[in-house]
Amino acid sequence: MLFQSLECSFSCKSATLGLRIQRAMSSVNIPPPECMLRPLEVPYRYLFGPGPSNVPPRILAAGARPIIGHLHTEMYEIMNDIKRGIQYAFQTNNHMTLAMSGSGHTAMECAVFNTVEPGESVLVSINGVWGERVAEIAERMGAKVHTMVKSPGGYFTTEEIEKALAKHKPVLFFLTHGESSAGLAHPVDNVGDLCLRHNCLFLVDSVASLGASPLLMDQQKIDILYTGSQKALNAPPGTAPISFNERACHKMFNRKIKPVSYLLDMTHLSNYWVRMHVLYHHTGPVSGFFALRESLAILAEKGLENSWRQHREVAEYLWKGIEDLGLKLFIKDKDLRLPSVTTIAIPDGYDWKELLAYMMKHHQVEMTGGLGPSIGMVIRVGLMGYNCSKFNADKALTALADALKHCPKRRG
Amino acid sequence: MLFQSLECSFSCKSATLGLRIQRAMSSVNIPPPECMLRPLEVPYRYLFGPGPSNVPPRILAAGARPIIGHLHTEMYEIMNDIKRGIQYAFQTNNHMTLAMSGSGHTAMECAVFNTVEPGESVLVSINGVWGERVAEIAERMGAKVHTMVKSPGGYFTTEEIEKALAKHKPVLFFLTHGESSAGLAHPVDNVGDLCLRHNCLFLVDSVASLGASPLLMDQQKIDILYTGSQKALNAPPGTAPISFNERACHKMFNRKIKPVSYLLDMTHLSNYWVRMHVLYHHTGPVSGFFALRESLAILAEKGLENSWRQHREVAEYLWKGIEDLGLKLFIKDKDLRLPSVTTIAIPDGYDWKELLAYMMKHHQVEMTGGLGPSIGMVIRVGLMGYNCSKFNADKALTALADALKHCPKRRG
Repeated sequence: MLFQSLECSFSCKSATLGLRIQRAMSSVNIPPPECMLRPLEVPYRYLFGPGPSNVPPRILAAGARPIIGHLHTEMYEIMNDIKRGIQYAFQTNNHMTLAMSGSGHTAMECAVFNTVEPGESVLVSINGVWGERVAEIAERMGAKVHTMVKSPGGYFTTEEIEKALAKHKPVLFFLTHGESSAGLAHPVDNVGDLCLRHNCLFLVDSVASLGASPLLMDQQKIDILYTGSQKALNAPPGTAPISFNERACHKMFNRKIKPVSYLLDMTHLSNYWVRMHVLYHHTGPVSGFFALRESLAILAEKGLENSWRQHREVAEYLWKGIEDLGLKLFIKDKDLRLPSVTTIAIPDGYDWKELLAYMMKHHQVEMTGGLGPSIGMVIRVGLMGYNCSKFNADKALTALADALKHCPKRRG
Repeated sequence: MLFQSLECSFSCKSATLGLRIQRAMSSVNIPPPECMLRPLEVPYRYLFGPGPSNVPPRILAAGARPIIGHLHTEMYEIMNDIKRGIQYAFQTNNHMTLAMSGSGHTAMECAVFNTVEPGESVLVSINGVWGERVAEIAERMGAKVHTMVKSPGGYFTTEEIEKALAKHKPVLFFLTHGESSAGLAHPVDNVGDLCLRHNCLFLVDSVASLGASPLLMDQQKIDILYTGSQKALNAPPGTAPISFNERACHKMFNRKIKPVSYLLDMTHLSNYWVRMHVLYHHTGPVSGFFALRESLAILAEKGLENSWRQHREVAEYLWKGIEDLGLKLFIKDKDLRLPSVTTIAIPDGYDWKELLAYMMKHHQVEMTGGLGPSIGMVIRVGLMGYNCSKFNADKALTALADALKHCPKRRG
């Protein structure tokens, strides 16, 4: 009760306090928890997994600025900057460009909830965990879901996609550009054209790839694109850029019934972000937006091309180092490898969990195992944005070499 | 292109870069936006509206700590602290206590989506904007929505509530404890008993009241309670504490069909927060959780009783000051006034928008107008948590007196 004495300067025996307060005050029977009287402890970690990645001091400082109201004029200016920053990062001129108040999954649900109506057909390509998620989201809201499935590391040819589009006549086709569970950068060229020809919206997940692997929303005719804040953008998790083109807007603003979520209804979100009405829908994460603006500013200063080149070159360096350790990369074709998240085939005889635990304990280095269908198949190393340097690649390789040396080999 | 020279230390003419990257690099045709090459500018504001309120340096610093992974052991310890801190703030022993990755609206949708199935009856009390929102959310997900409506400032008697429960036989009854659009603290005593007797879950919104106006979840038999981070808790917006008791858990974990949202599915969220499985559902806002923990720690140190007393005493001081300026308080009965958000009847002859703009311009003080049905009826002054002091009340009163003196009186 640190502040007790301070508080008593008001009046300890409050004759003026309402009866209900006095009764409630004497009814408090759950004491302050001991654990909350201890200070917050956070260890330093090298976040070399698939994200979140380390947040540079400049972005942390932006997120720690004293806040203003979510509906203040200056906040709308900041939101406008964010919009412009996303347009640049996505290479799009779409007006309907904004940041979701939530992680990449929020953007994923928002995209599906707004562009699909119950009973409509949706085609989802699944070659890792993200497609599985979209299929589940679409099923829950009543869509007819058709899936194309490959094992992790697999990808879909334009012929396969066209065949499925023709067969299922979906209103929406989902593809993951950066399949972080498998470490695959899926080819996107020509798919937009196919979707256009089949009168279907093309939805792309670039959470793990944006800023690291080339993507050109307008030129590649992507109708809806989203990403997350916590990967190559290096902002803390909690905001998610998303953009809809004219075709997507036409579909979602000419619905027969309202989207099932009020929170994610693009009619309201577009009033907030695009028409910039000072109308309350929800309270945006002000500090998260400050941080996101800073992360997009860093990308604008650096230049997309430089960021792509840097990720590829550091990845090449990392790949060579991994192979020099006698390990195998999970994705054989270099041009299909996601430069932000590298997948290593689990080395014969090792328990991958032991390797990860060793690196965390002795090097404060986070790498992770697989996710969803790739669990037990890979170890994942992510060097993204701020973390993307040869220095950090060396640090990751040192940790890995040390783990291979010290962890028991059980079989193989 | 600030980093160009740095990047070129890799290799400006990358023969090793993949063809696709080189093609993409030459296809970038949207330049970095000018606005993003300027630094972030954020003015200082006295946030004396209904929230977000100013964030104290200690909480800003916690939110600016270097992040760790959302699934790291230490993160689960921090989440456990948060859970304990919420249990204390809510005065509940519920295991199913957690923080949503989103604002209060996320918690609102989560509560409705999980405890109600399509076709079930829901009763919503509306005496301001929050009930309107819940009714809309429940309607969208296919519930049969029944409403009880009062104009802003009105409240519901236990007789009225019991009559409606008997008539509509809802599975869920919604009530706003802190009706911030009207400045009303709704009586909650006995309503839980009524709901129990009518086999209905009692859902309470305490976004604007938690920590400011007494509420005892377990003793008042509230089945589901949620709040926001950005009011009396003084954390940045973006996280929302919520708790479900056994009865609520029984209902939501014995559903016939899955909730419509994967993101807000309590089966997944309870695995994450309560069973603490290290299983990926979504990426939680790590920095937001650091800040939320700090805000709950401050409340635990201070003590709920002290916080309630402080809010009531500062509110009394503010109310007297407002009346001394010749203004009228919108809620007549002191014991029905929300101590965190005071509503002033718009003074005769003044344009409320001019008064607000004057205070913002000349005093950097934010107050706001009404919200939803209370627009044009009230001016709202919030002094919450960190902002709750006689010093700030004086600052608010000075700004208000100055605005009344300098803004033109047009009629009345």
